[in-house]
Formats: sequence, C-alpha cells, structure tokens
Amino acid sequence: MQAKISEAVIRRLPRYYRQLKLLEMQGVEKISSQSLSQALNVTASQIRQDLNCFGGFGQQGYGYNVRELRGKIAQILGIDRKYQLVIVGAGNIGAALASYGSFISEGYEILALFDVDPALVGTSVAGLPVLHIDALREFLSGHGVQMAIIATPQAAALPVARQLTELGVQAIWNFAPVELVLDDVVVENAQLTDGLMALTYRLGELNHQSPQND
Amino acid sequence: MQAKISEAVIRRLPRYYRQLKLLEMQGVEKISSQSLSQALNVTASQIRQDLNCFGGFGQQGYGYNVRELRGKIAQILGIDRKYQLVIVGAGNIGAALASYGSFISEGYEILALFDVDPALVGTSVAGLPVLHIDALREFLSGHGVQMAIIATPQAAALPVARQLTELGVQAIWNFAPVELVLDDVVVENAQLTDGLMALTYRLGELNHQSPQND
Repeated sequence: MQAKISEAVIRRLPRYYRQLKLLEMQGVEKISSQSLSQALNVTASQIRQDLNCFGGFGQQGYGYNVRELRGKIAQILGIDRKYQLVIVGAGNIGAALASYGSFISEGYEILALFDVDPALVGTSVAGLPVLHIDALREFLSGHGVQMAIIATPQAAALPVARQLTELGVQAIWNFAPVELVLDDVVVENAQLTDGLMALTYRLGELNHQSPQND
Repeated sequence: MQAKISEAVIRRLPRYYRQLKLLEMQGVEKISSQSLSQALNVTASQIRQDLNCFGGFGQQGYGYNVRELRGKIAQILGIDRKYQLVIVGAGNIGAALASYGSFISEGYEILALFDVDPALVGTSVAGLPVLHIDALREFLSGHGVQMAIIATPQAAALPVARQLTELGVQAIWNFAPVELVLDDVVVENAQLTDGLMALTYRLGELNHQSPQND
C-alpha cells in the first residue's frame, strides 16, 4: 500500500476525475499533463507529482490514457461503486442537496430526508420522503446506509452525528456551521463560509498585485 | 511581505478563525496549539507551522492570545471588512445560499439574486429580490459589488462568469458543476460532489484499517 496521501492531493483528485470524465465523453483518448494543467489551473508538474503518489500512470512522450486514468482515480476515490445516503435536516441546505442532480450521476443515491419540523415531516423533496427523525433507527436498520449528510442547525449537529454513528453510519458530510470531530467515523466538514473566506483572501492577493509591481 | 501561502494553509485558516471566534465568545483568553489541535483534528505542530507562515503569534509557554490571533487571521483572510455579493441562479442551490445565515454574521451581505426563469423573477428569497439577469448591468453599476456566486446550470456558468467579470466583479464563487478557470479574477470552484468524493476516499481508508492490522 502507498503511504498516507496528503489532504491537498485528495482535494485535487476529484478535479482530475471530473475533467477526465468530460474528456472521455468528448471522445478524447489521451491527454498530456500540460493540457490537464491548462484546464484546471494546476501546474503540470503538480499533476504528475500527484499521480505519482499512486504509482503514476503516464508514459513519457505519450501522456495519459484518459479512460484508464479516470477509472483508476475512480477506484482510488472509491466511487467505482454505489453509495446510499440519508440527509438529516430538510431545511434550505438539506433540500438543495437532495435536489442536486450531480450526486446521482456519480453513484450517490439519497434515500430520504429526516427532520423534526412538523411542517416538513410528511412532505417530499425532489421526490424523496421527509421522515421524522424518530424513524431514523428503523430506516437505517432496513437499508445499508453508510453515509449521511447533516444539514441541521448548529446545536443539533453533534447529537445527530452521535446518533448516526451509533446506528452504523461511517461517513458524515456536515453542513451545519460547527466543526464536528468524531472518533471511528470519517467526517467532512463542508463549512460553506470557508469557501467565501478563501475567496476573500485571494481577492486581497489579487488587489495587492498592483499594475506597477510589488 | 510573506511568500505566497499554500492552498492547504488557506484552507485551514478559516477553521482556526471559526474556532477562535467560538472560544472568544466563550470568554477564553488564551489557548495552546495543543488545545486547538484537539478541537480541530489538526496536529499542534501543523498549527504552529501554519501560523508561522504569517510571522507567528504565539509565545513559548503561554500559547496564543485568542482575541489577537482571531483578529490577525481575520485580517489575513480579508474578512475584517464588509463585502457585498449577488447570486446568479435562484434555483435550489442559489436559494439555499441566499438563506444561509452564517454569511451575514461574517460580513458577507447578499444584495439580490438574478435568474432568467419567469417563474422566479419577481419573487423574493429570504427577503431578497430575484431580478431578471438583464438587470444585472444596471444593478452592478449602482452598487460596489466585488463578489458574485454562480448557481446556474452548467451551460450558463461560463457566459455568466464572463459577464460578471466585464461588469467589474473580481471574485466568483462557482457552484455550477463545471470548473471555471478565468484570468484576472479569482474563482473558487465549490464543486459539491468533490466533498462527497473526499469522504468516500476516507471511508475506504477507514475500512482498510482492519481490526487486526495492515
């Protein structure tokens, strides 16, 4: 097995995957790291270095076989199979995620949403039922659900995460505005505000590069 | 000025900021890198190394002054002032982002949404008007809008991004399922599916760490 892959590389792999999938749909058979570099704003040497983490797939002077590389990255990311998810929290964010078409095309199937709000329970979102949180235990025991999305208010996120973990969920994608750190379960904290902050930081960089020079 | 900060550091700064803000609200005055480490699942040495990129703020044997460090990180991230944004695309994702309370508390004010759908134009979302995209030019010329969120379908994203850039927008947070690469403007591609893929990857890592050993 390879050594532990750095967080930064894991962040770039889905971007490579997406670009390769697009190229494959366009009928492109091979691609150089230079061409990938231009489309993704990642240097060619960074791309080569990243892919070398997994043994490297390119051939000198040929480039990468698009289909083979896409398949290999899918395997590394674990998206060469299907996953079933539930969403806890059927408010704005939960509903938007339930309606997000791209998840399904990548093999992520959302089965149901859960909430405590009587105004939401019993309705449906994007064709999916909104069930009461009390039905979570029974629902999860009847399905092989490994992953869950938390889109609750801040205060509910940790108790919900603990409940999901007890019920066998192994991976949590958390959209509540609080950083969850849990043992024995993988958590991805999708702090939406962080994206804006990274953008603001780079906006500052852009504006400090004056037309004269620095 | 310091050298260019790595992408990975920029990603962690908002997490430090958020945790420090929470501590400050709780009345905590100083904190060690060890305590921050436990709350954030980042090693203490990584935290020290990251903060050293900006000159370091801690004192040996004392730790960090919470308020000072939060203020300094806010300054580095550029969130010590206010920003005004518009959202193009008032569908599920656009509407969910417009309703997301945490943006406002961090100084990001969303002014309006824009769409082409006659069913949406003229309505309001979270108290904000949904205007026709044709009104974008006039609206932006009357406000000092530097940032925009794109939440359109895939095909509209690039033309919308170009239009925004022409109208003086300098920073774009793109939620459309396509990677935008633009010159002279900063773009943050918030590929939602990437979060799920990173989660799946780490789920695979978790499941390969068998109870016996590796």
